[in-house]
Amino acid sequence: MKELEKITPLEQDFSKWYTDVVKQGNLIAYGPVKGTLIFKPNAYGIWELIQQNLNEIFKEKGIQNVYLPLFIPEKLLNKEKEHIKGFNPELATITMVGDKKIDEKIFVRPTSEVLFADLFKNSIESHKDLPIIYNQWANVVRWEKTTNPFLRSREFLWQEGHTCHADPLEARHFTKMMISCYARFLKNFLALPTIIGKKTANEKFAGACSTYTVEAMMKDGRALQSGTSHYLAQNFSKQFDITFKNKFNLTEHVYQTSWGVSTRLLGAIIMTHGDNRGIVIPPRVAPTQVIILELFANKNPKIHELCLELEKDLGRKYRVSLDASDKGPGFKAANAEIQGIPLRLEIGPKDFENKTVTLVRRDNLEKEVVELAKVKDRIGELLDAIHNNLYEQAEKRLNDNTVVVYEDYEQFKAELENRKFVIAPFCCSGKVEEIIKEETGATTRCIPKKFDKPTKSFKCIYPQCKSKTKRFVVFARAY
Amino acid sequence: MKELEKITPLEQDFSKWYTDVVKQGNLIAYGPVKGTLIFKPNAYGIWELIQQNLNEIFKEKGIQNVYLPLFIPEKLLNKEKEHIKGFNPELATITMVGDKKIDEKIFVRPTSEVLFADLFKNSIESHKDLPIIYNQWANVVRWEKTTNPFLRSREFLWQEGHTCHADPLEARHFTKMMISCYARFLKNFLALPTIIGKKTANEKFAGACSTYTVEAMMKDGRALQSGTSHYLAQNFSKQFDITFKNKFNLTEHVYQTSWGVSTRLLGAIIMTHGDNRGIVIPPRVAPTQVIILELFANKNPKIHELCLELEKDLGRKYRVSLDASDKGPGFKAANAEIQGIPLRLEIGPKDFENKTVTLVRRDNLEKEVVELAKVKDRIGELLDAIHNNLYEQAEKRLNDNTVVVYEDYEQFKAELENRKFVIAPFCCSGKVEEIIKEETGATTRCIPKKFDKPTKSFKCIYPQCKSKTKRFVVFARAY
Repeated sequence: MKELEKITPLEQDFSKWYTDVVKQGNLIAYGPVKGTLIFKPNAYGIWELIQQNLNEIFKEKGIQNVYLPLFIPEKLLNKEKEHIKGFNPELATITMVGDKKIDEKIFVRPTSEVLFADLFKNSIESHKDLPIIYNQWANVVRWEKTTNPFLRSREFLWQEGHTCHADPLEARHFTKMMISCYARFLKNFLALPTIIGKKTANEKFAGACSTYTVEAMMKDGRALQSGTSHYLAQNFSKQFDITFKNKFNLTEHVYQTSWGVSTRLLGAIIMTHGDNRGIVIPPRVAPTQVIILELFANKNPKIHELCLELEKDLGRKYRVSLDASDKGPGFKAANAEIQGIPLRLEIGPKDFENKTVTLVRRDNLEKEVVELAKVKDRIGELLDAIHNNLYEQAEKRLNDNTVVVYEDYEQFKAELENRKFVIAPFCCSGKVEEIIKEETGATTRCIPKKFDKPTKSFKCIYPQCKSKTKRFVVFARAY
Repeated sequence: MKELEKITPLEQDFSKWYTDVVKQGNLIAYGPVKGTLIFKPNAYGIWELIQQNLNEIFKEKGIQNVYLPLFIPEKLLNKEKEHIKGFNPELATITMVGDKKIDEKIFVRPTSEVLFADLFKNSIESHKDLPIIYNQWANVVRWEKTTNPFLRSREFLWQEGHTCHADPLEARHFTKMMISCYARFLKNFLALPTIIGKKTANEKFAGACSTYTVEAMMKDGRALQSGTSHYLAQNFSKQFDITFKNKFNLTEHVYQTSWGVSTRLLGAIIMTHGDNRGIVIPPRVAPTQVIILELFANKNPKIHELCLELEKDLGRKYRVSLDASDKGPGFKAANAEIQGIPLRLEIGPKDFENKTVTLVRRDNLEKEVVELAKVKDRIGELLDAIHNNLYEQAEKRLNDNTVVVYEDYEQFKAELENRKFVIAPFCCSGKVEEIIKEETGATTRCIPKKFDKPTKSFKCIYPQCKSKTKRFVVFARAY
């Protein structure tokens, strides 16, 4: 059980725990350029399942996948001033090819709004061409100063959707539909409860009219923005002159949206479900859902045969692997746990004799002995039970640690200090937001969609601000 | 039928035909940086199906997907001299982040051998850790001077596999197994016949000990290298010091392979199966396999209802789309053809009355009327028939246009001028190869695996070369 000892308890040092879990779970290695990551099979497999499942959902919604270039010429990015301002200090810039200087600087995409804008400009003529609903899976680059595996790296993987609509209402509706779609996906596949809401002006995407977000709570009480959907209005279409002839044959600028989730979600999985034994992967995105451990197979070669048979049979229904190494039971169990595999299936000489197997859940470590004939069905039930249990635990934690503070700024600060999500009346002024951030370390996460706010107005939570407001905002420290 | 007129006949100007097909098939747009491509849904959908199907094959072979960074620091790439020499003039180079110069130049990966080498160095201890069999799907960048959609662009998509073995024989075997695997895949999914063989020293991959290739013949008689597999021996492992303890506990350098196919394959599809009506997509990688055309539906709204029903029902088994636009039958048919959809299903008032549909094949334009009740099964048969027909046509063309020339250099040149693949005895000297290239425009494509060569030695085909050889080599002009 050597590996287990290497994980720092999360109660002791959360960020060290996180790094240990990432490392011990055989998830990543560091790339040779500082701040870049290598996704090993255990991690990349989760991302592939996220892709597969999102692609199915996207298909149902008529979203088409495309691929746009990695490179943005300087003058194209400069067209949208707010946007370039938001990304400029983080842009990886190509100035040479081989030994030769090139004429115009080329940026590695930090996001692709301007590339899509350029494509749309040349593809749309009439309202009959609309809506266009595109998505791409891609790598993007932002030269972050401090990096953290999955959460903030200089290159990361994501999907970014980009749409054009003839009608602003349709575009606004699409923006909101996508954020709900993400919330459902995170719940149903990653067992991740989130708070859906709108970002304040300070926190919205550079170039957007409004940004919606799904915010998750990590085990240390910090928030992780887990997906966003932006209503871009005509901000890009006016700068890039993306027009269409409307039903009255008048020229109009299109209305746009963009939306995405990224490999940050792997960080969300770890910090929501992980424990002191390592990562716990939600079953529906687990590259291996069941690992078969053959125990003491050297004593009876028929155990190995049975395990091979089981691997094949169960493999038709689940993602299964087999640990047929010569390691001891303790090591094998620990190894399965540290890799976060939802379910392990143990077969030793006693099981073999009794025609049973032992199933052990990763989430609560519960064991049960199951007849061989019933194991296939039982696994399906248990995988669902694990998913539900992970979700319920996370939801309870989110609810238990979210508080409403109506008036008292000292209480507001104390709750934040206490690692809570704090919902409070807020004027939404960018300046006040900055001051609160300085005083508490917390940022506004969103104006939550589902919150039974009082009908009367409240004074803004910040004492020196005298505005009255009906808006309640979630504050938290965030990743 | 406006679109059809825009395609230049292939007999008239093959390269213009190609550009027209690419453009009219709604496959790509050009990116804002010269030489970069936008993959629209029609093109990206083919690539996604190539990915899906190769991933299934890879899984069976125990190949695990990973993702490595986009960036290579200068000193890492400089470690393998042959390799860097091969890529240096094409390297996109980052020298700045935002407005600041960075300390060390960073290259955008042209391929990832050195990145994998760096990962392997840190992951392997014992022969028990071997083999490692990784693959990644990624974008790579090579700053080509002249570009051509799919065939040669500054950024392209590919998969690159990288393996480490304890045993050189196992590694050599793996190299050959992968090239056969590609040949089978190209045959079974892209209906693409190829010649498998080994590259000459001149044409092998920079840094490899030997390179195997699958070469396809385009409709203009030129060769397209469609996949490669390299035996790297210990070239990288010695430079990067990738070692393991062998069974006798002695330290040894690992033996490596790498192998890949790219979005070039979309060019291969077009130039192998395309005709004067546009691209013809092989059914197994066609994003839409069957397009339903409702004709004169305004005369009978029940036609539209039936089409919706059919779309849903057939959609359970095939990739189906519906053209319910108000365009005329001629336009709809031409539009389906220009997009290369393997099969179209037409329903007009007469079909509706007779409870039949009309199926039209894209490959040979054959029409047949099928009873509604039998259409689902018939589609499956026809898709297979289309695949087989495309393959057989391409195979016949390849066979008919491959000739053997034993001695006569004038005949050799004439056959090449005549757009043939020419198999000839060749000394394999790099210098002679360069001269032949200058004189004929042809390069060596490979030393074919399946070729019943005479047992006796022949003089090298090049008159001034007096060497005798038993090696027969395929020469052709190539993309």
